[in-house]
Amino acid sequence: MIQVGIVGYGNLGRGVEYAIQKTEDLELVGVFSRRAPETVETVYAETNVYALNTILDFKEKIDVLVLCGGSKDDLPQQTPELAEHFAVVDSFDTHANIPDHFAKVDEAAQKGKQVAIISTGWDPGLFSLNRIMMEAIIPDGKTDTFWGKGLSQGHSDAVRRVDGVKGGVQYTIPSEVAMEKARSGSKEELETKEKHVRECYVVLEEGADAKEVEQAIVTMPNYFEPYDTTVHFITEEELARDHQAMPHGGFVIRSGQTGEGTNQTMEFSLKLDSNPEFTSSVLVAYARAAARLAKEGVVGAQTPFDIAPKYIHPKTNEQLRKQYL
Amino acid sequence: MIQVGIVGYGNLGRGVEYAIQKTEDLELVGVFSRRAPETVETVYAETNVYALNTILDFKEKIDVLVLCGGSKDDLPQQTPELAEHFAVVDSFDTHANIPDHFAKVDEAAQKGKQVAIISTGWDPGLFSLNRIMMEAIIPDGKTDTFWGKGLSQGHSDAVRRVDGVKGGVQYTIPSEVAMEKARSGSKEELETKEKHVRECYVVLEEGADAKEVEQAIVTMPNYFEPYDTTVHFITEEELARDHQAMPHGGFVIRSGQTGEGTNQTMEFSLKLDSNPEFTSSVLVAYARAAARLAKEGVVGAQTPFDIAPKYIHPKTNEQLRKQYL
Ligand SMILES: NC(=O)c1ccc[n+]([C@@H]2O[C@H](COP(=O)([O-])OP(=O)(O)OC[C@H]3O[C@@H](n4cnc5c(N)ncnc54)[C@H](OP(=O)(O)O)[C@@H]3O)[C@@H](O)[C@H]2O)c1
Ligand SMILES: NC(=O)c1ccc[n+]([C@@H]2O[C@H](COP(=O)([O-])OP(=O)(O)OC[C@H]3O[C@@H](n4cnc5c(N)ncnc54)[C@H](OP(=O)(O)O)[C@@H]3O)[C@@H](O)[C@H]2O)c1
Repeated sequence: MIQVGIVGYGNLGRGVEYAIQKTEDLELVGVFSRRAPETVETVYAETNVYALNTILDFKEKIDVLVLCGGSKDDLPQQTPELAEHFAVVDSFDTHANIPDHFAKVDEAAQKGKQVAIISTGWDPGLFSLNRIMMEAIIPDGKTDTFWGKGLSQGHSDAVRRVDGVKGGVQYTIPSEVAMEKARSGSKEELETKEKHVRECYVVLEEGADAKEVEQAIVTMPNYFEPYDTTVHFITEEELARDHQAMPHGGFVIRSGQTGEGTNQTMEFSLKLDSNPEFTSSVLVAYARAAARLAKEGVVGAQTPFDIAPKYIHPKTNEQLRKQYL
Repeated sequence: MIQVGIVGYGNLGRGVEYAIQKTEDLELVGVFSRRAPETVETVYAETNVYALNTILDFKEKIDVLVLCGGSKDDLPQQTPELAEHFAVVDSFDTHANIPDHFAKVDEAAQKGKQVAIISTGWDPGLFSLNRIMMEAIIPDGKTDTFWGKGLSQGHSDAVRRVDGVKGGVQYTIPSEVAMEKARSGSKEELETKEKHVRECYVVLEEGADAKEVEQAIVTMPNYFEPYDTTVHFITEEELARDHQAMPHGGFVIRSGQTGEGTNQTMEFSLKLDSNPEFTSSVLVAYARAAARLAKEGVVGAQTPFDIAPKYIHPKTNEQLRKQYL
């Protein structure tokens, strides 16, 4: 059994606790949190919670750590720190800072002779893998990434700041028209604003004017004005009942030409009822890979680009060839 | 530049000749055929054609061979024979014989200290990769593969054997109803016959009775009777004009549950106007991987499961991380 530790217990931490239960070859040693362990309530009563600052005592008991901190403030510090002492995986998703994060994690992992897989998850992660594989196969073409249907935190906040709005959420939805263009083999560049439409579900404050609120939203510069935006008015009960989940997903589409202009289209898509639970499931599959690579003596920072797919699946290579190839 | 040889010049061989032109890091040394070189007509006039039995003279000039023979009779012999002397890739697609093919190729490659990547292409190949990755990520779920829309050689032959049929083709098409079930997260097993519908385009012989021909087709045991089959009657001109391409494609769909029953759906699909040209493009990307692995000293048979994605893309790992992750 591969012995796993969870570092940080938010949405991803909870998702990893669930995902480990679904495997037959991974076992949870415990959750490590910066908060007082007795204040952290886990999904399963039997899950151990420890103070993060005691984690070095577990060096011999843990094969791999799944780092579930936030990309903004936690992982830039936690991944390098822990990669010096443990095999680790994270889902660092600040795209622009990936080269820097990679360099820091690599230095620490090299120093401690550990392996560290960064930026797993779905974007970065599975979407990135599809972007490079599709381009490698059809060099003469164009790749488009569409996000959604998904709840956008930043845009939901913007809606809630509008006068007369009591509560609300915003979903980003890929535009069907733009997706058809992407699939068609056309080389026309699509702008972000024509690739997505925005849908808002809003609860009005008493006495607020619906028309005014709608206008204020759809004309909001940057956030909504450039997009095709629809506003739906709902009750507080509906907001609580229908809009508390964290759905997300998206599409990577590459369309291009082979031979004398023959069209070929490849597409990868996700429809996720829970973004964090799915991301956690990807983290856990790559945790398996990290534990195996550590056993093989691989050292240093890696990304999903560096990992042969067989490492994430629990079966042997012989079984995979026989049953899935 | 990576120096490439093509072995066997049929649909795939031609597709590889095209695909190499679309790359910036691969160069074609020549085509090697069992036929007399002067009888083989290549796409580009400048392409060299050599007799296959002279290929050992090219050992120093070639980094990797792309094997384009048929899976039934050519590759079982050619891949092991050539893997002893060259880095090779093939698209061997007789699923049931893959373990045996792998063992024979591995023995030869080990003996000659070469690398050999077998069963690239799309099924086996990209579809297989998606099957293992999706299952590894969402262990509690169900994967379905759908094929089409694609021309089926065997079923087209069956249509043409019916009395009163002058010519015709048959397309296998995934059933929309079955695909929606696969996406829904239901664990219900779908039978092959409910997963696909069949569409026939038929040219009648003069005086033949359309109703009788249609009945003979849709009631044909095994081939059509178990399926939802539609027969369209067309003219000889339409058959020649609209049904000569080799389209294919399909879908790999996995739907499953995380947490307390949260539904997650992953989907990979291809819509190919030319099956052989696409398969050739995959072969060429894996030829790049084989040449690179050979340089690193990797020896023995490999499948797409063993190849880290970075190896198939021409850019450096730094560029990939910065631009695509
Ligand atoms: N690559 C991808 O596709 C992808 C997709 C989705 C998300 N992500 C990344 O995943 C990161 C983590 O997401 P998340 O939703 O798990 O974030 P989160 O719920 O905010 O948790 C982040 C950290 O905050 C602390 N925390 C959680 N709940 C707390 C509470 N009630 N009070 C005080 N502290 C609490 C936890 O650390 P302690 O236990 O130590 O306090 C936890 O590790 C995101 O920043 C994002 O970058 C990546
Ligand atoms: N993995 C996948 O997803 C996938 C997808 C599609 C196909 N495939 C595989 O690819 C294999 C090859 O497909 P293909 O369409 O390229 O087969 P093909 O056109 O029949 O060519 C096979 C071989 O037949 C010989 N040949 C071709 N044209 C000829 C002619 N006019 N006269 C005499 N001999 C000729 C060539 O060898 P010489 O030049 O030595 O005579 C060639 O290597 C298939 O068997 C299939 O298994 C795999």
